[in-house]
Amino acid sequence: MSGNKVIVFGSGMVGSAIAADLSKKFRVTLADIDLNRALKVKEKNPGIEILQLDVNDSMALKSSLSSMDLVVSAVPGFLGFKALRRVIEAGMSVVDISFCPENTLDLNSLAIEKNVTAFVDSGIAPGMDNLFLGYHNKRMEITHFECLVGGLPKIKKWPFYYKAPFSPVDVIEEYTRPVTYIEDGKRTECEPLEDSELIEFRETGKLEAFLTDGLRSIISTMPHIGHMKEKTLRYPGHADLIRALKAGGFFSREQVNINGSKVTPFEVTARILLDAWKLEEGEEDITVMRVLIKGKDKSGKSVEVIYDLFDEYSKETGTTSMARTTGYTAGAVASLFLEGYFSDKGIFPLEIAGEHEDVFRYVLDYHKSRGVIFRMSEKAV
Amino acid sequence: MSGNKVIVFGSGMVGSAIAADLSKKFRVTLADIDLNRALKVKEKNPGIEILQLDVNDSMALKSSLSSMDLVVSAVPGFLGFKALRRVIEAGMSVVDISFCPENTLDLNSLAIEKNVTAFVDSGIAPGMDNLFLGYHNKRMEITHFECLVGGLPKIKKWPFYYKAPFSPVDVIEEYTRPVTYIEDGKRTECEPLEDSELIEFRETGKLEAFLTDGLRSIISTMPHIGHMKEKTLRYPGHADLIRALKAGGFFSREQVNINGSKVTPFEVTARILLDAWKLEEGEEDITVMRVLIKGKDKSGKSVEVIYDLFDEYSKETGTTSMARTTGYTAGAVASLFLEGYFSDKGIFPLEIAGEHEDVFRYVLDYHKSRGVIFRMSEKAV
Repeated sequence: MSGNKVIVFGSGMVGSAIAADLSKKFRVTLADIDLNRALKVKEKNPGIEILQLDVNDSMALKSSLSSMDLVVSAVPGFLGFKALRRVIEAGMSVVDISFCPENTLDLNSLAIEKNVTAFVDSGIAPGMDNLFLGYHNKRMEITHFECLVGGLPKIKKWPFYYKAPFSPVDVIEEYTRPVTYIEDGKRTECEPLEDSELIEFRETGKLEAFLTDGLRSIISTMPHIGHMKEKTLRYPGHADLIRALKAGGFFSREQVNINGSKVTPFEVTARILLDAWKLEEGEEDITVMRVLIKGKDKSGKSVEVIYDLFDEYSKETGTTSMARTTGYTAGAVASLFLEGYFSDKGIFPLEIAGEHEDVFRYVLDYHKSRGVIFRMSEKAV
Repeated sequence: MSGNKVIVFGSGMVGSAIAADLSKKFRVTLADIDLNRALKVKEKNPGIEILQLDVNDSMALKSSLSSMDLVVSAVPGFLGFKALRRVIEAGMSVVDISFCPENTLDLNSLAIEKNVTAFVDSGIAPGMDNLFLGYHNKRMEITHFECLVGGLPKIKKWPFYYKAPFSPVDVIEEYTRPVTYIEDGKRTECEPLEDSELIEFRETGKLEAFLTDGLRSIISTMPHIGHMKEKTLRYPGHADLIRALKAGGFFSREQVNINGSKVTPFEVTARILLDAWKLEEGEEDITVMRVLIKGKDKSGKSVEVIYDLFDEYSKETGTTSMARTTGYTAGAVASLFLEGYFSDKGIFPLEIAGEHEDVFRYVLDYHKSRGVIFRMSEKAV
C-alpha cells in the first residue's frame, strides 16, 4: 500500500464503491454528513477511516483536507459545485463525479492559480465517453460523436420498466431539462425524450434511445465536431409512459391548491417516482453503453469506432453496476493521478486527460482488471 | 303546453338539457345554487323560470316544491341521496339521475308511506340498459345481461384519448371503486379495469371494454340472472395509461409530505385529470352503447337480443351527446309520469318501470323523436 491519502466525500452507492476500491492501494478516509452510513461501509472495509463531515461547513471541509493528497467528491449534484470550488480554493487536487448542474470549466483559472489538478465528470457517462472522444480526437478527424447509455434494472417490471441506479431526482431532471445537441455544426435545442429510436443490444435485445442533455463539457471543448448527441437508453415502454405523464400534466410546475395546501404536480410526481424507482437492497442492475465516433483517419479514410459496454451487478460484493462503472472510472483517475501519470494544472474533463495514450490505457486496464470490459471495434464506412 | 309544473335541480350539462327539453311541454323551473349558471340556460330558453337554491338547505328545498307536480334531480352524485330523501319526505314525486353512491332502494318504504313515485337512475346507463332488461325480463327467461357503454370525445387525443362528458370526479371514482358483477349466479368482486377486451363498433372501430361498477340496482332486482356485467368503453390506449398510473402509485390515498404540505397522490392526480379531461366549449362528444340480453324465449328457444346506440353532439343546439342521451331519458320518464302512464308508489329503477309495454315504447319513441336511435336486433343462438 502506498502512503498516499485520499478523502472521499459522500458514502452513497458510488462513493462507497470508490472508497472500497481505492482502499486496496491507498489510505482512504470516507466522509459523510451521516456517520452511520459511512460506518456501514467501514464494517465491510475495516481499513477505511471514517469522518462525519458537512461539506457545506467550509471550516470543517478545509480542516478535513489537512494531510490529504487528493479528494474524490461523490456528493449529490446540488452540493457538487460548491464543494468542488472549496476544495480547489484550499489548494487540493480533486476527482469529481458529483454531476453538478453548473459549468465546472468556469473554475479553470482558479484551479491554475491554486496549482491544482481537478478532474471533473469522471464517471461512466459523463466520463468514459469523454475519455474515448478525447483519445480519438487526437488521432483522427472526428465528424460525428454519439453516446448511448443507460443504467437499468436487470429485471424489467411494468409499469415503468425502470429502477434508478443513481439518484431518481437526477433522472427526473434529465427528463425535464432542455437538451442541447450539435447538428451541422450548430447548437440545437429540443425537449428531452425526442429523436427516439429502438436499437438492438446483444445482451438486452432492443432498447429505446432518446435525447437527453448529456453532452456537457464537450460542447465547448470539441467545437470542431459537427454532430454530437447524447442519448439515454431505456427498456421500450418506459419513455412512452414518461411522455404521457408529461403531456398529461404530471410534470407541471404550476401550483395547485389541494384543500389549502399548495403543491405542484411536479413535486408530487417526483415523490411517487422516487419510491417507485428505488432499487431494492440486492436488486440487480445493468449498465449498457455504446459510444460511436465517426470521421476520417490520418490516411483520410472514413472510419467508425464503436465502444460497447455491458456490465452487471456484482453478486460477490453486492456492488451495483452503476457504482462499478462510475466508481472504477473515478478510482482509475484518482489512482493514475497519485501515481504521477497526469499532473497538468486546471480543470480537466476526461476528453482532455484522455488525449494521452498512457492515461487512456490506464483507465481501460483499471476497468478491465475489475471485470468492466469495453469492447472496441473499428470499421471503414 | 300542459299546466304541469316541473322543477329541475341542477343546471349542469344534463340538468340544462332536461329543463330545455321539458319546457316544450311543461312549465319548468330550473334551480341551481349558482343563479348565473341557470340564467345562461334561460337566455336560450326564455320560457324557463329560474331559482337560486341550495339543496342542502332543507327549508328552501321544501318551499321550492310548493305548487310543483314533479322534481327532476340532476345534482352531483354526492348531493343526490340527501336531496332525493328530502323530496320524498316532502311528498313529491321525482325523477333522479344524480348517480349517487348510496342505495336508493333503501328509500322504498318511505316513498310508499309518502305516496310518492320516485324513478331513480333514469339516465342513459344506468337507465336505458335497465329499461331494456326490465322489458325483456317479463318476456323471456334471461340468463345473461351485459351493458357496454362509453361517453367519449369525438376526436381522440394522446395521451389520454379521453374527455369526460360528465363529472371527471365520477369517472375517477369508476376507475377506483371495486366492481361487483354476477358470474354463475354468484356475486363476484374484482378491481375495475379488469376483464378487458377490444370490441368492434361500426362508427368508431375497436373500443376497449373493461369492468366497472355499474350494475347497481339490478344486482338486487334481478337475482335470478346468473351472468351480469357492466363494462365501460374507451378508445384503446386510455385504460393502459390509467392502469399504469394506478400501478405506479398515482392513485395512492396515502399522504405524502411535500415541504410541509400533506396531500395524497390521489388528490393531485384527480386535479390533473379534472383539467385534462374537461370537454372544451363546443368540443364534440359521442355516446356508444351496446346492451346484450341472452336467454330463452317463451317457446324455449335460445335467443340473443342486442340494442346498439351511437349518438353524437348536436351542433344545432350545442347539446352534448351525454346530455342528450341522459337528459332525454329523464325527460321521457318525467313526461310519461305527468301524462299518467305510470303511477305506482315507491322507488323505481327503470328495470321495474320498463316491464310495462307502454312505458317501454314511450321512452324509446321519446328518444327517437329527438334523434337518439336504439337499433334492436334479435337472433337465435
